[in-house]
Amino acid sequence: MPKRIALLGSTGSIGTQALDVISRFPENFIVEVLTAGNNIDLLIQQARKFLPDSVVIGNTQHYKLLKESLKGLPVKVYAGNEAIDQVVTGENIDLVLASMVGYSGLNPTLSALNAGKSVALANKETLVVAGQIICKDALESGSKIIPVDSEHSAILQCLAGEEGNPVEKITLTASGGPFLNFPLKRLESVKPEEALRHPNWEMGSKVTIDSATMMNKGLEVIEAKWLFNLKPDQIEVIIHPQSVIHSFVHFADGSVKAQLALPDMRIPILYALSYPGRLKSDLPRLDLSEFSSFTFQPPDPVKFRNLALAYSALKKGGNMPCILNAANEIAVDSFLKGGIGFVQMADAVEYAMNNTDFSDNLTLDIIEVTDIAARLKTKEFIKKHINKK
Amino acid sequence: MPKRIALLGSTGSIGTQALDVISRFPENFIVEVLTAGNNIDLLIQQARKFLPDSVVIGNTQHYKLLKESLKGLPVKVYAGNEAIDQVVTGENIDLVLASMVGYSGLNPTLSALNAGKSVALANKETLVVAGQIICKDALESGSKIIPVDSEHSAILQCLAGEEGNPVEKITLTASGGPFLNFPLKRLESVKPEEALRHPNWEMGSKVTIDSATMMNKGLEVIEAKWLFNLKPDQIEVIIHPQSVIHSFVHFADGSVKAQLALPDMRIPILYALSYPGRLKSDLPRLDLSEFSSFTFQPPDPVKFRNLALAYSALKKGGNMPCILNAANEIAVDSFLKGGIGFVQMADAVEYAMNNTDFSDNLTLDIIEVTDIAARLKTKEFIKKHINKK
Repeated sequence: MPKRIALLGSTGSIGTQALDVISRFPENFIVEVLTAGNNIDLLIQQARKFLPDSVVIGNTQHYKLLKESLKGLPVKVYAGNEAIDQVVTGENIDLVLASMVGYSGLNPTLSALNAGKSVALANKETLVVAGQIICKDALESGSKIIPVDSEHSAILQCLAGEEGNPVEKITLTASGGPFLNFPLKRLESVKPEEALRHPNWEMGSKVTIDSATMMNKGLEVIEAKWLFNLKPDQIEVIIHPQSVIHSFVHFADGSVKAQLALPDMRIPILYALSYPGRLKSDLPRLDLSEFSSFTFQPPDPVKFRNLALAYSALKKGGNMPCILNAANEIAVDSFLKGGIGFVQMADAVEYAMNNTDFSDNLTLDIIEVTDIAARLKTKEFIKKHINKK
Repeated sequence: MPKRIALLGSTGSIGTQALDVISRFPENFIVEVLTAGNNIDLLIQQARKFLPDSVVIGNTQHYKLLKESLKGLPVKVYAGNEAIDQVVTGENIDLVLASMVGYSGLNPTLSALNAGKSVALANKETLVVAGQIICKDALESGSKIIPVDSEHSAILQCLAGEEGNPVEKITLTASGGPFLNFPLKRLESVKPEEALRHPNWEMGSKVTIDSATMMNKGLEVIEAKWLFNLKPDQIEVIIHPQSVIHSFVHFADGSVKAQLALPDMRIPILYALSYPGRLKSDLPRLDLSEFSSFTFQPPDPVKFRNLALAYSALKKGGNMPCILNAANEIAVDSFLKGGIGFVQMADAVEYAMNNTDFSDNLTLDIIEVTDIAARLKTKEFIKKHINKK
């Protein structure tokens, strides 16, 4: 029986790569749902090719065009975020792949988990802001959260068959991004187009900037805490510029396991789709003879302050990771639009963390309020500093 | 319930390290049987400390001394190889750790497997000469063979939780031994005491020489074929001088898993004893921050001809791996005693492979005859060449 997939965020970087993977396995996967926020042209193309049961466009202004474009095809058409939340709960869905960008992934993820669906989660912000709530929901509904991020996929793969075995810690690897060996001074003048050139990975622009500032790794540390039920001091980060070893699990007997692959997101996407099985694929192979060495170095806490900010948010708990995430979304957006400078992104996040109301008691309402408040605080910082960069 | 262990070859390198491990977990493991070939003094010491149900000394000449030395203790005393074969079948045994050196490990391993015991196998020669027979016996009796070699332990650990998932190939790592970067010419004058200095591992002298000639890796390639049901071209070897990554499994979806640990045999011994569980230990930990890089290089087929000889024996099948193994035992013995030179060991093995009767139909009788014949052929070669080194 093929697995029936709802693909949320199908026009983004993960979404398009997921469709590439799915199209290689017509006997294993069926696309039941496609959703996108705004990219109506690509969504129409995808719907015509995969003929899902339903498509949803988040932006309701595009509904009419979508409806007309798919006229005569056996595809139901909906619009709006509430429709996305509903469509993932359908009986015809086995697995929801949540690959929207940012905070918008939270509601449909919760909706799918509460409906007892397995969720392949590529939207890390969801776990960062609401990990506590999501994991409780998944536990109660018996749903499974399968990470798509290459690092967390690596951890999941290393933990296969190790149920009940004691884990001491994990080490997340980080490429170090394009500025790993830049002096601190040079970071100040980094331009968006430089930051968008990642040395190893093809990704969307938000996550590419997050990689360059190492906020991406900070978010992944928080994500790992919730996915694998770890304490902050059980999660380490090491720079591995080749991006071939995707992470390590250290067991309490002295053994360590690692997962490796070429840096190609289709590999962890395929694993999330086929989990706990694996499918024979023609995706590019890692050839060890092409690597004379794998190198490692500790992250520089002065150059990449975001990592420390993320650990601090994780230790503080409550809504602090939500503040971190919201502030970072605004800071990255401003940087990309030529607003604040590269090193000011961490300043902006720190400002928001210090100036947004803290709450220890995390609820969905508090997340909603915090998200708005932290964005306002960050914009306040940006307004003050935008002419001083 | 603690696991009740029969430890065969308790006075050797693996045996003593296994007792070190066992003594750290008095609530998890009980020593029921200790056996040794000749080292009566150490066996007496071990028996007094661990008070096993039974001890067996292979060399029957030592029986009287052993019996008298353990007088008054609740320990049964036996002697002779047949006693070893019998004592492993006792109802009080959960796991047999077979860590004798060389061909002598075959009979007790078969005896334990046929009695339905799980066997932790540190004696690689057993699988090399009789892998086909042993795996058939294990399959029929439902017994489990758990490898102790660090490389095969790594493969087993990477395969945990991957039942039914397609494996493309495995890569065994090799340290390259002490002569990795010696020019070929210099190898000709290598002395036994140089070859006995392994850069990373503390091991017995036979396996240390085998590491220096890479015959050890050749034997492990054959062993891997039987343990993991692979074809010869699914088994690769790569030199990794740090001996930290112990092997890789390449899955057919493009993912690769690896197991890492400091080069300390107690770690794979503990895994074999606790398999499929893991126990929290105070064995030394791998600290990734202590390694700036892991390096790799292909093995040099001209300098280390034994590896090619082993692949050739594996592909030929039948009694050829038995010939390879017997010839190698004699060649190493001669080298250690100042007989043939370092590079002549491969010549001796090749001579035996070319001049011992080949049989495609492997039986225990044929193994016995082949073992004797191949040793004679190797001695013939040595006699001819010993004055020409």
